[in-house]
Amino acid sequence: MAKIKQIYFFGGGSAEGTAKMKELLGGKGANLAEMTNLGIPVPPGFTISTEVCGSYYTSGKKIPKELEPEVDQHLAKLESLMKKKLGDNDDPLLVSVRSGAAASMPGMMDTILNLGLNDKSVEGLAAKSGNPRFAWDAYRRFINMFGNVVKNVPHESYEHALSSVKKKKHTTEDTDLDTDDLKEVVRLYKEVYKKVTKQNFPQSPKAQLWAAITAVFDSWNNEKAIKYRTINNIKGLIGTAVNVQSMVFGNFGNDSGTGVCFTRDPSTGQNYFYGEYLMNAQGEDVVAGIRTPQKLSTLDKHNPVIYKSLVKFKELLEKHYRDMQDIEFTIEKGKLFILQTRNAKRTGAAAIKCAVDMAGEKLISIEEAIMRVSPDQLDQVFHPMIDPKAKKTVKVIAKGLNASPGAATGRIVFTADEAEAWVKAGKKVLLVRNETSPEDIGGMHVAQGVLTATGGMTSHAAVVARGMGTPCVAGCKELQISAKSLEIKGTVYKEGDEITIDGTTGEVFAGSLPLIQPKLSKELQTFLKWTDQVRLKAKRPGIKTDGIGIRTNADTPVDAKRARFFGAEGIGLCRTEHMFFEEDKIRIFREMIVAENASARKKALKKLLPLQKKDFKGIFREMKGLPVTIRLLDPPLHEFVPKTKAEVKEFAAEVGLDPLKLQAKIDSLHEFNPMLGHRGCRLGITYPEIYDMQVEAIISAACEVAAAGVTVIPEIMIPLVGTARELEILKINAVKVIEETLKRKKAKIKYLIGTMIEIPRAALTADAVAVHADFFSFGTNDLTQMTLGFSRDDIGSFLPQYLTDEIYSEDPFAAIDQTGVGELIKIGIEKGRKVKPELKIGICGEHGGEPSSIDFCFKTGMNYVSCSPFRVPIARLAAAQSVLKSRK
Amino acid sequence: MAKIKQIYFFGGGSAEGTAKMKELLGGKGANLAEMTNLGIPVPPGFTISTEVCGSYYTSGKKIPKELEPEVDQHLAKLESLMKKKLGDNDDPLLVSVRSGAAASMPGMMDTILNLGLNDKSVEGLAAKSGNPRFAWDAYRRFINMFGNVVKNVPHESYEHALSSVKKKKHTTEDTDLDTDDLKEVVRLYKEVYKKVTKQNFPQSPKAQLWAAITAVFDSWNNEKAIKYRTINNIKGLIGTAVNVQSMVFGNFGNDSGTGVCFTRDPSTGQNYFYGEYLMNAQGEDVVAGIRTPQKLSTLDKHNPVIYKSLVKFKELLEKHYRDMQDIEFTIEKGKLFILQTRNAKRTGAAAIKCAVDMAGEKLISIEEAIMRVSPDQLDQVFHPMIDPKAKKTVKVIAKGLNASPGAATGRIVFTADEAEAWVKAGKKVLLVRNETSPEDIGGMHVAQGVLTATGGMTSHAAVVARGMGTPCVAGCKELQISAKSLEIKGTVYKEGDEITIDGTTGEVFAGSLPLIQPKLSKELQTFLKWTDQVRLKAKRPGIKTDGIGIRTNADTPVDAKRARFFGAEGIGLCRTEHMFFEEDKIRIFREMIVAENASARKKALKKLLPLQKKDFKGIFREMKGLPVTIRLLDPPLHEFVPKTKAEVKEFAAEVGLDPLKLQAKIDSLHEFNPMLGHRGCRLGITYPEIYDMQVEAIISAACEVAAAGVTVIPEIMIPLVGTARELEILKINAVKVIEETLKRKKAKIKYLIGTMIEIPRAALTADAVAVHADFFSFGTNDLTQMTLGFSRDDIGSFLPQYLTDEIYSEDPFAAIDQTGVGELIKIGIEKGRKVKPELKIGICGEHGGEPSSIDFCFKTGMNYVSCSPFRVPIARLAAAQSVLKSRK
Repeated sequence: MAKIKQIYFFGGGSAEGTAKMKELLGGKGANLAEMTNLGIPVPPGFTISTEVCGSYYTSGKKIPKELEPEVDQHLAKLESLMKKKLGDNDDPLLVSVRSGAAASMPGMMDTILNLGLNDKSVEGLAAKSGNPRFAWDAYRRFINMFGNVVKNVPHESYEHALSSVKKKKHTTEDTDLDTDDLKEVVRLYKEVYKKVTKQNFPQSPKAQLWAAITAVFDSWNNEKAIKYRTINNIKGLIGTAVNVQSMVFGNFGNDSGTGVCFTRDPSTGQNYFYGEYLMNAQGEDVVAGIRTPQKLSTLDKHNPVIYKSLVKFKELLEKHYRDMQDIEFTIEKGKLFILQTRNAKRTGAAAIKCAVDMAGEKLISIEEAIMRVSPDQLDQVFHPMIDPKAKKTVKVIAKGLNASPGAATGRIVFTADEAEAWVKAGKKVLLVRNETSPEDIGGMHVAQGVLTATGGMTSHAAVVARGMGTPCVAGCKELQISAKSLEIKGTVYKEGDEITIDGTTGEVFAGSLPLIQPKLSKELQTFLKWTDQVRLKAKRPGIKTDGIGIRTNADTPVDAKRARFFGAEGIGLCRTEHMFFEEDKIRIFREMIVAENASARKKALKKLLPLQKKDFKGIFREMKGLPVTIRLLDPPLHEFVPKTKAEVKEFAAEVGLDPLKLQAKIDSLHEFNPMLGHRGCRLGITYPEIYDMQVEAIISAACEVAAAGVTVIPEIMIPLVGTARELEILKINAVKVIEETLKRKKAKIKYLIGTMIEIPRAALTADAVAVHADFFSFGTNDLTQMTLGFSRDDIGSFLPQYLTDEIYSEDPFAAIDQTGVGELIKIGIEKGRKVKPELKIGICGEHGGEPSSIDFCFKTGMNYVSCSPFRVPIARLAAAQSVLKSRK
Repeated sequence: MAKIKQIYFFGGGSAEGTAKMKELLGGKGANLAEMTNLGIPVPPGFTISTEVCGSYYTSGKKIPKELEPEVDQHLAKLESLMKKKLGDNDDPLLVSVRSGAAASMPGMMDTILNLGLNDKSVEGLAAKSGNPRFAWDAYRRFINMFGNVVKNVPHESYEHALSSVKKKKHTTEDTDLDTDDLKEVVRLYKEVYKKVTKQNFPQSPKAQLWAAITAVFDSWNNEKAIKYRTINNIKGLIGTAVNVQSMVFGNFGNDSGTGVCFTRDPSTGQNYFYGEYLMNAQGEDVVAGIRTPQKLSTLDKHNPVIYKSLVKFKELLEKHYRDMQDIEFTIEKGKLFILQTRNAKRTGAAAIKCAVDMAGEKLISIEEAIMRVSPDQLDQVFHPMIDPKAKKTVKVIAKGLNASPGAATGRIVFTADEAEAWVKAGKKVLLVRNETSPEDIGGMHVAQGVLTATGGMTSHAAVVARGMGTPCVAGCKELQISAKSLEIKGTVYKEGDEITIDGTTGEVFAGSLPLIQPKLSKELQTFLKWTDQVRLKAKRPGIKTDGIGIRTNADTPVDAKRARFFGAEGIGLCRTEHMFFEEDKIRIFREMIVAENASARKKALKKLLPLQKKDFKGIFREMKGLPVTIRLLDPPLHEFVPKTKAEVKEFAAEVGLDPLKLQAKIDSLHEFNPMLGHRGCRLGITYPEIYDMQVEAIISAACEVAAAGVTVIPEIMIPLVGTARELEILKINAVKVIEETLKRKKAKIKYLIGTMIEIPRAALTADAVAVHADFFSFGTNDLTQMTLGFSRDDIGSFLPQYLTDEIYSEDPFAAIDQTGVGELIKIGIEKGRKVKPELKIGICGEHGGEPSSIDFCFKTGMNYVSCSPFRVPIARLAAAQSVLKSRK
């Protein structure tokens, strides 16, 4: 190695590095340098560059010769600056040795604190600090950490030694140990060290230092670090830097102290100086909760000088880093040190307020403000949450999938009918089911939340609950559900018992926990308006229309209204089948299903027509001026038939059929793999009269609503198309009905006819399909099922293992599998647009509300995404962020 | 139109056209010209070219001016040659006017016979023929045909008139009408004509002729003709030709006659002159069966001169057309006319003998011989068939899918157990089930044939029956099956009643019909050897190894042996799961399934290991020297569990489990969509010990068989891979077990580890998958299911409609959907070979034995196809034909 600078000093008001030198100094080293250069009083130290680590490895794990004199020289500089010497018997300089790579790898590499202590310097520290217990405690911690990191001495061996001392003292708490006890612990620790390493614990601070540096280098290639880099796809780094930094202590007396502060309130985002501190204490005392920390505002009274500096530094740091900071500080003998600053973790509400305020303050641009709020943070503000204080006090009794966000509390009931009965009686309920089915809709609607034992993120319960905005924990395997009770790990919860679920985390709690209700602030309105400005103006090469639209999946006027409130620009998926489950329709629909022939079928459909028309009119009115994509009947007919013997008997009586014949008809509808069966447009092909009725209902409704002066934009969507010919036939049928209806109504309505692309074959032959389509809407739920060969209802038995084995990095029903399904989507879009460059393309699967999937949709050139009403704001944000990312 | 020759004459020993002028003269015209030029006595006539038809349309349906004099001129030539005049009152020339395009469009366009008859010439014909009844019958037929074709006079109107005459005569048979009756019919027909057309029936033969020519031109663009061309993708033709040909009659007296002959025996292919004739008769008399025709050999005695000419012509024609001919001839007043010759339809046995013999005679090349036998014809010779004579006498009682070829007859039974019991008692049985399941294997094995009510061409019954070579009719919807009886359209068949099924056609018959058993001739051996020579030497650009191999799907030593006999060059798919259904294994396998944990599971697997090893050894021995691809466990575990309550109870007692707990365990295995559930390599990921056991059994078996000096080539195949990572994990696991086993056995065995490509995602990401694969085997059953979104068990309710609507031209489970699934296969092969150019690629779905699919596999560059043992010869032929087609 040629003579290259290997070490970068920081301290005494300036540093050799800067924040931009992350590659060379690692994130931590660069940040310490940056703060030092800002004039922030950072405990001084020096950073050994990542290049040294690189050459350590290329030379076969040898410390470069040239490093030693350079370390000596920088250590001397540090000692002179700190006016202390490493290993000094009276007033020893103690240092920390920490790793720090260019990419953040939290907890993956090693740290050693209090380096420089030995049997002599510990006494010096005791005297100097006036706190012998602290000194000996620091020493025993150092021996533990050093042994563990440098020599792989098992943690348990030390624990064992510590326990023996505690046992003698008849206690289980560390805090009960006095100085003498700790001296005994140190003695035992040194014995442990010797036993394992066959060496004495090193007393030379220099030897300690070199061993620590080497250990940090080695930690770069330990198993967990390598794995972490593989999983997180961190490539191209040459090694870790090593930070050697002087230690400072907040427990040197009453002129010392320690604290944590935030430049703004991380709960609300309000712009005031927020924090806590403790005098004569170490950082861990603040965290441990043994002493109650004081509010930062009181520091102004106790020590206005320190407080003013702190205020000055926090303002400097926030301005410099242009974001809310989370700052750790220590006061050692009246001198303030900033140990760390980082962007503060914050609640969703705080993130939004902060972003909007900072843009208002011109601290950041509007584009930056948009990037500052994660979709998850935005989602938080729309849902009730469990009061975090209350949550801390209780235990999670079970954990399932976080299927629909928000918290809910209520009395448990086990059937949809019970749910409705209890709610009528004025009770709040949580519906608990193995899995819900379309018949449970009523009960789900009135329940505060839904908890299921089976099913994944796209199970019926999950999809419907998300659509309704009802919190839901799904696939909670620990539940054992009987008729009127629920057993979780041996504890039985009976009907009427209260429980609480957190659909945002998937947690379940016993009892009723207090909830915090969402508030929609004016900052939120501003923020979402900003996202729209960015989103709607986006230009993409080769895409004819600007921007990417956000539509919603809504089946009812109520859903439509809610979605509009959340900013939906149209309906991307209106499922007509849910309408048929309503009480007035299911009977007629069943009549249609069991009809002996087409004419009986038509008779039943004729009765259904005005009812369905009414549904559509309601939706068209709510969505006036915006497009409404209505999907024709999709699910297999057997989903609608009576299930129990009693229901069959009752229905047979109603329609005057022999119950045995009816049962036989129902049995004949059974399918081995309903997902791959007689559904979607296959129903339209075999029973054209069903689609004819639906098309007539849509267009009549559109005419009637338009006659009242409302702009109506109906888009008819044919599901489950696998061949161009299916679409061709069904489009011809539909156009015929439409033209007849318009003629009869003497009306002109613009309409589109398009198709879902949800079968792999449709994507593969999208050029042929596009000939007959005004639009494509990717149905990525089904497309995922078929492309991956997974039924979303049946993945529970192997998906967890698949995630553990990293076969899929995420549930492919939650986030689009971009490699596999994404490839098909790309093929579909490319082939479709080759034939029709202006083809409107969107997505209406569950993925339409998931940020990484939205990003994919934007990148592949889709014109809109459609998601459940409650996801609309998230989608608006995610899409805007995609636009901004694409500009880079 | 410039002066272009519009009409081509044939007759008098020479013709202006040739066989090569099909574009211009149509198929029929070109063939008539060709025969004339050969010196064959064809009734003379002329052909108006297709170009005239083209200009008829481009000029807005006008007959070109120049045509009329040219027709006159050619008609005059014809009259002079025939020494008769069109419309002559004493001896009229009669002609036929027929369409004939370049592509064959049977029955799509129009024909008019006996043109030239009118109220006067009919008397001349009566006198000249000495058969007034014939003359008047000819006239009334002409009026009917002319009115129908030229003026759209409905057929029913004529029928109505005819019926009234028959009624008067108190008869229902045409043959009971005498000359006077027919005169009355003619009168009535002319009235009908007038009533509909408001014109008299044209008496001018010239007017008749021009009307007929125009009608033929018009028929080119009638609805059914256009539709026929669309469906059959016939493009680029400008129109039809019109053939005007003199009529000859075999019923002019005892010096006249008519007959049909074949140049060889169309049943056996034997080379002797085969045919039938009748003197003083029309062609339709031979067909109608009212008089018994005589064998052609007797003609030699009755009229040696005619016979000798006939022999001369048939020899000439076979030599000229270089194929067995089916020849129609008429003798008019001692003069022989050949009316038509065409390649003869023949049985499979005849096709093979003919092809081999003709190649032996150097009439055709070996390559041509290979192309002369269709795979369906070849298939015939391997299966029993219903005696065609017997078949003519009975009615089809039901029709299903022709799921496994060959005919079978036996007593019907309704469970597999009954089948075994009846067979033990010495009876032959047909197993009738709604659908079979793996537990029925025993019963299927002993049954003569299998008949099912549900399921398609790739249902369990169909797949297993084909594998066994057992005839099967599947998905026969008319069956209504009860416990001990079967109802078909109101008729009840009880257990023990005899029925017959034809698995080649899908027909079902009551009673026991006589069967003809297959014979494997020496010509067949020769023929198949020839196909292999062509097949194995095929070279394709970019494909590293020559030829395309034929492997078999075989799960047992018996299957393996049979497949080798049929010429299989390896096993492409050995399903291990069928082995587990055998009595000695199913119990242990179930023990494994219900095991509480991995160690209990391993205990059961340990018991299974020697049994499975034994199976593999048997197969390895049979296949010595050839590769054996063994697929690890594929179906979901719930397929193996006890189904009925009684079985559950019994099994619970056997393994000492609480029946309720066992039932709960079984219930927990239930899946909504088993096809998309926890199966294939997903089992290998979640229960690695299962695959470990199987791999150990395979390799131990290979070592032990190899130790006895047998060459063993095991290929381990991982099913249902959707991601490269699955294969990576499972390959690592397998290699570990293999290396341990080889070490323990102190052996070296070459082995491959590959994967099935049967999930769309695997094809889409084949480049990543190929990294870990030694071979790909396309599992096109599953790939079709997932790409098209069809469950093969559930398509019965809509596939028939889909075929009717031409959404799919064929059942996609029978022939590969080349547009959709084929596209994925191409992507898979291209991406796979991009990473590994030498990657071995095959197919092991049901499609591997279907000719159009084999052709696709050859074209896409696969190295082998694998099919059920009985399909191996068909595959050998189909592959050879693909090779030959690709050379063009």
